Amino acid sequence: MDAVTEDTVTDLAVQRWGTAHDPRTGEVLTALIRHLHDFAREVRLTEAEWMAAVQWLTRTGQISDDKREEFILASDVLGLSMLVVQLNHDLDPGATPATVLGPFHIDGSPELGFGEDMSQGLPGAPLYLSGTVRALDGTPVGGAVLDVWQADEDGAYEAQLPVDEARLRAKYTTRPDGSYCVRTIAPKGYAIPMDGPVGELIAQTAISHYRPAHVHVLVDVPGFHPLVTHLFREGAEYLDSDVVFGTKPELVVAFTERGPGPTPDGGRSDVAWLDARFDVVLQPA
Amino acid sequence: MDAVTEDTVTDLAVQRWGTAHDPRTGEVLTALIRHLHDFAREVRLTEAEWMAAVQWLTRTGQISDDKREEFILASDVLGLSMLVVQLNHDLDPGATPATVLGPFHIDGSPELGFGEDMSQGLPGAPLYLSGTVRALDGTPVGGAVLDVWQADEDGAYEAQLPVDEARLRAKYTTRPDGSYCVRTIAPKGYAIPMDGPVGELIAQTAISHYRPAHVHVLVDVPGFHPLVTHLFREGAEYLDSDVVFGTKPELVVAFTERGPGPTPDGGRSDVAWLDARFDVVLQPA
Ligand SMILES: [Fe+2]
Ligand SMILES: [Fe+2]
Repeated sequence: MDAVTEDTVTDLAVQRWGTAHDPRTGEVLTALIRHLHDFAREVRLTEAEWMAAVQWLTRTGQISDDKREEFILASDVLGLSMLVVQLNHDLDPGATPATVLGPFHIDGSPELGFGEDMSQGLPGAPLYLSGTVRALDGTPVGGAVLDVWQADEDGAYEAQLPVDEARLRAKYTTRPDGSYCVRTIAPKGYAIPMDGPVGELIAQTAISHYRPAHVHVLVDVPGFHPLVTHLFREGAEYLDSDVVFGTKPELVVAFTERGPGPTPDGGRSDVAWLDARFDVVLQPA
Repeated sequence: MDAVTEDTVTDLAVQRWGTAHDPRTGEVLTALIRHLHDFAREVRLTEAEWMAAVQWLTRTGQISDDKREEFILASDVLGLSMLVVQLNHDLDPGATPATVLGPFHIDGSPELGFGEDMSQGLPGAPLYLSGTVRALDGTPVGGAVLDVWQADEDGAYEAQLPVDEARLRAKYTTRPDGSYCVRTIAPKGYAIPMDGPVGELIAQTAISHYRPAHVHVLVDVPGFHPLVTHLFREGAEYLDSDVVFGTKPELVVAFTERGPGPTPDGGRSDVAWLDARFDVVLQPA
């Protein structure tokens, strides 16, 4: 019989899980076991702490649903999501850098035309977000779909609201010259949900639970490295303390105030509006 | 603004979570972050694997309820539970060793008298489990409560069945001389639940998903180190491959076959029965 002790149990568990039929599964699970055991040994994890962890994990699963992804949020605030982004998107310095997906992306957003409004009359400062999508070598990428989503003026995403229709999310396709134009409202900084297990943890620290104002953009074009990113509003609060570690200097763009007049979609605005220019550079796959 | 890279994100996260108001919380969470990040870096965790992990964790929480504790099971099969037991119960070699609690303990079991039957007519070989509870120095411990639970002939615990009454679990109190006597049925080896996320993982390996026949015993007496343990049936199948790493040589006891005649509770059996003797030695706190 195995002599299970503090010193042998890790090797025993690694031996067992090393029998995974798929070698990569075995590699990942045995590494997880070693690091998890090292963690427990290092902090001399108590049984009360272990039980608190079991209960925290259970609550985190149970508060999750179709629209709420509390484990993604947990991964985000622990810096794990951003680390995984870095591990998987080691891009050329000339390419638009990636950042976290976040827990609020919804598949199947409606397709809107050049300059069409995805804010549908919601309150907020009118914002035109425009630019081009190009390859690293400068070639325009026409027909690229930009999947765009953001929070409303109160910092709420559709995924957090009891709404049936798409809200502040849409897909825009670039024209043959690579240009795109999104009409929306200026995003605001927002608090991550604090009413769940992740909020419980954050509340036990001095960590700011805010994210700086940003718009999410996902661009997945065949032949290019898929890009999940944000653009952040220059000068926004919390740029230096983003709770999910998502900010990067290259992703910060000016929101320039413009008076009534011509807009980037070729039309005119009767009211003042904000002009954000964000050129996306994709790295060939 | 922080330059978030593969190399800096861990230190940034550790700095943030190091602000926990309670120093131990900070110690545990920052160590968790370091080990979790080291794991992700070591295996170059892909985004698909990260998402599979998020979904696995979510399902594990969602299949859990009052009676099913899938995260405890996960911790058990990864050897983490047994490691935590070892870290917290570094007992004198003369004391009865601890093993895992398992996911099936239910609080508030009924109190039965010396030799009373906790199997209430369920099918199975009659088993008398008897012995004494003593301190390390040999002093009998009277008034000690043994909280006992086990699976039925089909390997099912009450927690896995839609029953309203206590089933194969009871509390027995030692007499002034430290003696106790449990009347029950012989436990069988059993499969852990394979219909959930933990089973999904096990099924991807060559790991046996069985536990050897055992009875759980919890003895928590004021003034002594609390003991959570099992006794295993000598010669049982799976003693060498317990899926939760719970077996220890000191916890294996003979189940001796006896013919009709006197039983350890002072009565008589008209039928053949099994005689298991298990003396518990508690370590003073
Ligand atoms: Fe966001
Ligand atoms: Fe058990």
